Amino acid sequence: MPHADEAFLADWSAHARFGAVAGTNGVDRQAASAADGAQRAWFAERLEAGGFAVHRDAVGNQFGLLELVPGAPYVLTGSHLDSQPTAGRFDGAYGVLASAHAGFRLAEELRDDPSRARFNLAVVNWFNEEGSRFKPSMMGSSVFTGKLPLQEALATSDPQGITVEVALDALGERGDFAGLDVASYAEIHVQQGRSMEERGVTIGLVNATWGARKFEFRITGAQAHSGAALMADRRDALLGAARLIVAARELVDEFEPGALHTACGEINVYPNSPVVVASEVQLLFDLRSPSSEVLNRAYTRVMEVVERVRREDRVEVEIVAEHSWDQDPYPETGVELAREVAEELGLVHERVMTVAGHDSTNMKDAVPTVMLFVPSVDGISHHLDEFTTDEDLLAGVAHLTGVLRRLVSGALVD
Amino acid sequence: MPHADEAFLADWSAHARFGAVAGTNGVDRQAASAADGAQRAWFAERLEAGGFAVHRDAVGNQFGLLELVPGAPYVLTGSHLDSQPTAGRFDGAYGVLASAHAGFRLAEELRDDPSRARFNLAVVNWFNEEGSRFKPSMMGSSVFTGKLPLQEALATSDPQGITVEVALDALGERGDFAGLDVASYAEIHVQQGRSMEERGVTIGLVNATWGARKFEFRITGAQAHSGAALMADRRDALLGAARLIVAARELVDEFEPGALHTACGEINVYPNSPVVVASEVQLLFDLRSPSSEVLNRAYTRVMEVVERVRREDRVEVEIVAEHSWDQDPYPETGVELAREVAEELGLVHERVMTVAGHDSTNMKDAVPTVMLFVPSVDGISHHLDEFTTDEDLLAGVAHLTGVLRRLVSGALVD
Repeated sequence: MPHADEAFLADWSAHARFGAVAGTNGVDRQAASAADGAQRAWFAERLEAGGFAVHRDAVGNQFGLLELVPGAPYVLTGSHLDSQPTAGRFDGAYGVLASAHAGFRLAEELRDDPSRARFNLAVVNWFNEEGSRFKPSMMGSSVFTGKLPLQEALATSDPQGITVEVALDALGERGDFAGLDVASYAEIHVQQGRSMEERGVTIGLVNATWGARKFEFRITGAQAHSGAALMADRRDALLGAARLIVAARELVDEFEPGALHTACGEINVYPNSPVVVASEVQLLFDLRSPSSEVLNRAYTRVMEVVERVRREDRVEVEIVAEHSWDQDPYPETGVELAREVAEELGLVHERVMTVAGHDSTNMKDAVPTVMLFVPSVDGISHHLDEFTTDEDLLAGVAHLTGVLRRLVSGALVD
Repeated sequence: MPHADEAFLADWSAHARFGAVAGTNGVDRQAASAADGAQRAWFAERLEAGGFAVHRDAVGNQFGLLELVPGAPYVLTGSHLDSQPTAGRFDGAYGVLASAHAGFRLAEELRDDPSRARFNLAVVNWFNEEGSRFKPSMMGSSVFTGKLPLQEALATSDPQGITVEVALDALGERGDFAGLDVASYAEIHVQQGRSMEERGVTIGLVNATWGARKFEFRITGAQAHSGAALMADRRDALLGAARLIVAARELVDEFEPGALHTACGEINVYPNSPVVVASEVQLLFDLRSPSSEVLNRAYTRVMEVVERVRREDRVEVEIVAEHSWDQDPYPETGVELAREVAEELGLVHERVMTVAGHDSTNMKDAVPTVMLFVPSVDGISHHLDEFTTDEDLLAGVAHLTGVLRRLVSGALVD
């Protein structure tokens, strides 16, 4: 095995000890947790050992800079090291370590012949992509691209009331780095689905993100004794929420298989006591589809259910937050560049959409962007058992290296 | 207004300041909270001012003792001062203050002529009747009657990991009082229903508790990305729980109106993250009815739903805890005694069942027991708006005084 591949696999096997969940292959490394902090310190050392200068910005994004062309803009590449609670070790972390090792490989090549570089190279570990501890997700890249005000991000609290600012400062992970001039961006991620594995594809050329309609519902009823109150007198907010959760699942069967994904992942109930009818429930409710027409039809059906729940269960149902987007393309020039590199390396490739959002979703609105996938066995994601073979991981690092080589030489930028 | 009634109403209006919820008439005074501690200190002073000697036992039950017949057993009367989160000011607290004031009245009568007393008199504020912060409910009376081991109660944790022992010790509310010899018990409570108000009844003669089948379900699925995972691949524990919550409500309509009450008041979801399909849900599920036949039929139907959820939603559904009882009578001799006192006082009375459990549910298994209700406007319970008129409160104190007068003189005891 080439030395560069061995080096990647060594770091890969080291990284999963941060936040490792005993007795599993997975990790629990929520944003700005102690485990996230330990891994950030380790990662900064790895970058410095590879010749990259490490900086943190005010929202805890970690950057490793390699200056090849003094004063020139940077090609940026990376992903995120934070995880969902009890999740797999690949999601996000693979993209960060693949970016670092692709960077190390290019650093070796270009230090010998810097004339081939038009741009500098930077590796990034975005803060809080997952959004499980601090909402919203993709926080670091949202602040970086100006979509989320810094102060709003820093003031965000976790369920224990700890703010992003306090949590990051406790780890020494906030800095004053700012003003990075980015020429282009590349990110690689494991697919969170099983189409590539089933079709024998090694490199996914991500050409679009599915559309989504995301709601936070507040369902309001009235507290009552859950034993003694007459059933007809009750206004049960948890019952209202349960009807919406069931409706979300049943709605899927009204559409072609695979056309619509729905989910309710988070629910918070008050007072959540054994003998009290719930008076207030907050429920997250997502619709996702590549088709705007499907999303619009599904939205109409959800609102019909909301009306029925209001009327029949006598609870109030309000939408207190909403976030929607239609199918969102990645630039075709980036897809084509990634295709050419895959051809060059003889890797089986295919255009693929992403259902999940990534930090590249933010970056592609700011600069020319390439988004890549490697396969995931059975598509298991946000689960301790998530798995991708070493062979596919290494193919992804090789492919990303090829993409970055072209970007550093000026590809995608006029 | 008689001085004794004025005295009761003065204490009644003072008590609701402990844990008062701003802008409402209700309270938030969960067991061993700071508000509970402040009220306990105040209540101990009120008992002492009334000539009662105050003692605490090892699980924080507060006793006020009036010795009339040295060495004789005690007639015990009381209820609980703790509340559900954001609840009414009547539930529990009315019974404790009514007991104290009935005690003060009898103390005046009997100090003048102790020859009429065969037993001594004690007032009790039971610890943690509500069970919202620390489970199970009726904790203090369960330990007192030997149904729950003391060490198990003390080791119980709230959701923040604070144990009963630590919480009570922080308030100085644990003592070493033990060995109270109880001859008989009486408790008064606001009805948690509206039948008495509707029928113009002032005193409810409680003759039985509804039966119940209570379950804690654990629903187990598998974590997955809630956007990307194929719908057919998901095993969504929250969906399984939602189907059970909806089924609980729909089941009611299969029986005669009022024959069956069902409820799911508490649900806990893991990981409860916006983009993760839930892998584990704990759900409390109650069936209540005066009829064992209805409960058994309802149980069978619930298990059919559980089977369907297992099969169709591919989640595991286990019963991890279960607590069941059939309709449970109060002693007829106590009902008759309470009826005689109501006749004597010219108060409209009626036999009534309780759907909710009370500390008297424990005590009646140990000693002759009388359980009384006063009406509640619209039957509102476990809600900030719970209300009973002063007139009904005072009628209840007068009635309880009459009951205790007979118990102290030896009624219900051979």
